[in-house]
Amino acid sequence: MPSSFATNMRFKFPILALFLEILIIVLFGVFVSYKDSSHDDHKQASNDTITSVRFSQLYPMFQDVHVMIFIGFGFLMTFLKKYSFSSVGINMLLAALGLQWGILVQGFWHLHHGKIEIDILKMINADFSTATVLISFGAVLGKTSPVQLLIMTILEITVFAMNEHLVAEVLGANDVGASMIIHAFGAYFGLAVARILYRPGLKNGHENEGSVYHSDLFAMIGTIFLWMFWPSFNSAIADEGENQYRAVVNTYFSLAACVVAAYAISSVVEHKGKLDMVHIQNATLAGGVAVGTCADMDIGPFGALLIGLVAGIISTVGFKFLSPVLASKLGIQDTCGVHNLHGMPGILGGIAGIVAVAMGASNGGSYGMQAAALASSVSIAIVGGTITGFILRLPIWGQPPDQNCFDDSIYWEVPEEEEENEEGLAHGEHSNNKAEP
Amino acid sequence: MPSSFATNMRFKFPILALFLEILIIVLFGVFVSYKDSSHDDHKQASNDTITSVRFSQLYPMFQDVHVMIFIGFGFLMTFLKKYSFSSVGINMLLAALGLQWGILVQGFWHLHHGKIEIDILKMINADFSTATVLISFGAVLGKTSPVQLLIMTILEITVFAMNEHLVAEVLGANDVGASMIIHAFGAYFGLAVARILYRPGLKNGHENEGSVYHSDLFAMIGTIFLWMFWPSFNSAIADEGENQYRAVVNTYFSLAACVVAAYAISSVVEHKGKLDMVHIQNATLAGGVAVGTCADMDIGPFGALLIGLVAGIISTVGFKFLSPVLASKLGIQDTCGVHNLHGMPGILGGIAGIVAVAMGASNGGSYGMQAAALASSVSIAIVGGTITGFILRLPIWGQPPDQNCFDDSIYWEVPEEEEENEEGLAHGEHSNNKAEP
Amino acid sequence: MPSSFATNMRFKFPILALFLEILIIVLFGVFVSYKDSSHDDHKQASNDTITSVRFSQLYPMFQDVHVMIFIGFGFLMTFLKKYSFSSVGINMLLAALGLQWGILVQGFWHLHHGKIEIDILKMINADFSTATVLISFGAVLGKTSPVQLLIMTILEITVFAMNEHLVAEVLGANDVGASMIIHAFGAYFGLAVARILYRPGLKNGHENEGSVYHSDLFAMIGTIFLWMFWPSFNSAIADEGENQYRAVVNTYFSLAACVVAAYAISSVVEHKGKLDMVHIQNATLAGGVAVGTCADMDIGPFGALLIGLVAGIISTVGFKFLSPVLASKLGIQDTCGVHNLHGMPGILGGIAGIVAVAMGASNGGSYGMQAAALASSVSIAIVGGTITGFILRLPIWGQPPDQNCFDDSIYWEVPEEEEENEEGLAHGEHSNNKAEP
Repeated sequence: MPSSFATNMRFKFPILALFLEILIIVLFGVFVSYKDSSHDDHKQASNDTITSVRFSQLYPMFQDVHVMIFIGFGFLMTFLKKYSFSSVGINMLLAALGLQWGILVQGFWHLHHGKIEIDILKMINADFSTATVLISFGAVLGKTSPVQLLIMTILEITVFAMNEHLVAEVLGANDVGASMIIHAFGAYFGLAVARILYRPGLKNGHENEGSVYHSDLFAMIGTIFLWMFWPSFNSAIADEGENQYRAVVNTYFSLAACVVAAYAISSVVEHKGKLDMVHIQNATLAGGVAVGTCADMDIGPFGALLIGLVAGIISTVGFKFLSPVLASKLGIQDTCGVHNLHGMPGILGGIAGIVAVAMGASNGGSYGMQAAALASSVSIAIVGGTITGFILRLPIWGQPPDQNCFDDSIYWEVPEEEEENEEGLAHGEHSNNKAEP
Repeated sequence: MPSSFATNMRFKFPILALFLEILIIVLFGVFVSYKDSSHDDHKQASNDTITSVRFSQLYPMFQDVHVMIFIGFGFLMTFLKKYSFSSVGINMLLAALGLQWGILVQGFWHLHHGKIEIDILKMINADFSTATVLISFGAVLGKTSPVQLLIMTILEITVFAMNEHLVAEVLGANDVGASMIIHAFGAYFGLAVARILYRPGLKNGHENEGSVYHSDLFAMIGTIFLWMFWPSFNSAIADEGENQYRAVVNTYFSLAACVVAAYAISSVVEHKGKLDMVHIQNATLAGGVAVGTCADMDIGPFGALLIGLVAGIISTVGFKFLSPVLASKLGIQDTCGVHNLHGMPGILGGIAGIVAVAMGASNGGSYGMQAAALASSVSIAIVGGTITGFILRLPIWGQPPDQNCFDDSIYWEVPEEEEENEEGLAHGEHSNNKAEP
Repeated sequence: MPSSFATNMRFKFPILALFLEILIIVLFGVFVSYKDSSHDDHKQASNDTITSVRFSQLYPMFQDVHVMIFIGFGFLMTFLKKYSFSSVGINMLLAALGLQWGILVQGFWHLHHGKIEIDILKMINADFSTATVLISFGAVLGKTSPVQLLIMTILEITVFAMNEHLVAEVLGANDVGASMIIHAFGAYFGLAVARILYRPGLKNGHENEGSVYHSDLFAMIGTIFLWMFWPSFNSAIADEGENQYRAVVNTYFSLAACVVAAYAISSVVEHKGKLDMVHIQNATLAGGVAVGTCADMDIGPFGALLIGLVAGIISTVGFKFLSPVLASKLGIQDTCGVHNLHGMPGILGGIAGIVAVAMGASNGGSYGMQAAALASSVSIAIVGGTITGFILRLPIWGQPPDQNCFDDSIYWEVPEEEEENEEGLAHGEHSNNKAEP
């Protein structure tokens, strides 16, 4: 049948992927070079980030961020019973492509002798840029094709780089842990895309849109690596010394308080006071998101704990009560609940930043500019996501039909044994047949 | 039925958790501050652990320890077929709460201008303090409610901080890798609790007290991350330079020899010479425990290998022959066999420390004080654990009835599909019904 | 029956393992010592790698390599549905034994005052030496006994140390990321062993030689940790400063391009353009292998991307079209396809090194010596692997009969529930019975 044939990726996907990779290689040939310490006008800074102690101070933090991007985001999304290959696999593809593109579109704002000179900070920022896409990926998980996601990666990172430049350079706002420019941005960009790709056919849910026992455990691998290394995420690009130290300490404490809050509220809202894995896997991380903007500010360990407590409560309540409303009333089907993990906590982080700057907890910046940064991040994300959504809606990108959503077998070779053993022979074959003419 | 109703956590758990978190936030507001390098009497030391090279030397080791606490301990306990959510999930909760409490109760011994000033060493020690609880958790795994475990966390870390102060400050004993104050302490504390909570109904085992193929693999994630990062655990708080270098090298070699010993002995004691996952998952780590006390001493790579070899043999033999006796004769039902992984190897480590100090392998300390430290750690643990056990035995903490032990579904929302596919429909519904009126 | 009795490991395995461990302990007692900074002729260098900043610069990279060896290689091989215990478990055993042996056989070439003085570089190189065995393990996975693999570990690491000395010291060739001396060497050594152990009975495949859904996910844990930390692998032993920085940057980019290429080609060659997990789990890593030899050279980010792109294409095509030919025509049954992940990309890396040196991208060395190094690595591996294969073929090492290949239950206690639930009762018992008289 046409719908399933349209999902055949043999030509569209490899052609687009190879075209993008070759385009990137050409642009790298023209614009990208090593950092050269010889003819450098700020030699120290350059040595710092290439060859000296500073490089080896930041390299472990870079690797922590790397783990968050590839293991953290990748496994966090493996909770779906039949969509784990796509979650961890497509996450890897988008991040690997995205970091190359991020080097280019972020680098174009800071050319040096006409070149983008690679150092450890540029690599960290390239990883950061992919986080926006991986957050948005969570909103449309299971309902998009690899081709659509490659397009979203290129478009979103490009828009992200513009907003980042606006926030950091033009407005001069503080956002060291990127509550606004990554988390809120990625969430609202993805929610806008999800809104445009709204599927009435999924209004009453989907048989595959759930977890099995072990898929929830795989997701916990992602959750915990994100949780542990978040202090590196929030401090990696902070100024050396006191600021970086505070960013580590504040994030460490905010996350700890957030965990306790998420567990407590999950038990409050669930039937019989049981814990819900969806909350544990996600809401426990909201404290890292919410403390991001003011992570390196003098908010005190006490302030960090408070932010984490509030973030954990808001996020858990959002999963329980707000997500259903977004789906039914606004037509926003947010597969992973990124609005609860990245959206609201990101805005909370932006507001906390405004307050902290107003209270003089920051070395610089103005609360007005903080507010402008939050507004621009959210609004540019919504506009960018909406436009992207319309592009992705074109019926030529192999988007899966409703009945094949949340099912790897439409884009992946899936072991037959598994079909038989875990979903039952009948169902297994059934779902396969649907995907194949 | 009353027993199952008593396991309803809706009120007890969130109220206790939120009360503790708010109490901690208040105490942080009063007592906890950043390390301030300005008005500091030992400026260098302070800079070292906040802003200088020393901070970035220790930060990666802190993150390694962090991974051991949250991934290592958490996944090590996921081997039970139906209790993996609780293992990794409650481990995360107890560690997140415990590290905040650990900052306070450890910090009260070292107030500075009336404040607990946070630096990287205090964060490492806070993570360490939670390890004692996570070890004890292994002894009562599957037989306690989240409420009981929150109480145990607060009590055990408080007692730990007192014993740590006694051992390190009063006795001036060496225990850089904490064989005595963490491993032996945590094990005997937990075994004492398990003794008081003895369940005659589980004398003949429990249908859920076993693994499935993939739950054993999840457990190996915990095992291997613990194994790899143990050199960081044993060296993180060692004196900079030669001592820290020796702690890394000794632990690296002790663990390597321990692996070979554990595999060999597992094959000797198992039927047909097969390997037993219980030994591989646990006994391979005994070398890290046993080398802890003298990790930074001049025992030589040769001495480190010997300690690891002996630890691997003792631990494997303990799993095979001693654990059944403890359960049947002493009424100590040690779910994870912490006596074999942390108890005996911890004592071995303490004894090795006595010998090493007596042989002058250490820069300071006396073998008498080492012996006193071992005795105090074990005896304070047993007394503290016994008292804690009586408190936890009060019939108001939602302890699960025997038939619901080792079963997530009593405290967690568990995906139905899983029940059907992995334990069979009948059994799945059966075990659910038991937990619900 | 005799075949199954011969697989009883109770005596052979523990006796050999303990004998080797005790032999190692004795040799350590005689030859291995800490690095002593006092009576040192190149004090600075020694301090560097023991106690100073350099140690803490390299320690995080050492730990990244450690994760690649124990988690990366271990979980990468868990894809087989019934052989995951052996994959991750025997991987741990071989690596733990191998690193001790590697310290000795590598150290004998660099005695200092008659001693092998341990520093962080020696520990990194010891981990490296085990990688050759773990690569070869992949070629014979599921078809060898633990006893055979212990023997292979000792023999292969010994041969590796000789070839490494020849390449690095005698020929003075560059191979910082070890494309030649580890990847090509390990692959062709293992393929030679596999050729000698050829099993006609497996010509038409084996019912256990496949994955299930979750075993493929476990394998992705290995894939992604290898992928993320490969920049540490390729830069850990590079000269401090510019070279180490370039090794990180080049590997980071080569791997990124390789991922996009592997996904694209996988979709091209698979039916209906679907992605194949075998390619995603393996070919995505080829870029790290191929950029190894010239990782620290001035090839430019552009050159790194090109190498990654070509490696990803070659590797994926190899899995699809070359592996079947090797098995049917040459009688090389390469279980994990190490020829595609380590063999061909390793040779590509050696060739890239020849070209890069010829183009003056390197500080030293000659392209002739690079070519000699590649030739010696491959040929010594084939000769060493062939001899090892004949030794392993002796009918006394408990090699599994064909029908028990790729099945943990012959050497491991496997949970019964799993047998029943995932392979079906009948089949489960069947496969068990086969292994037991």
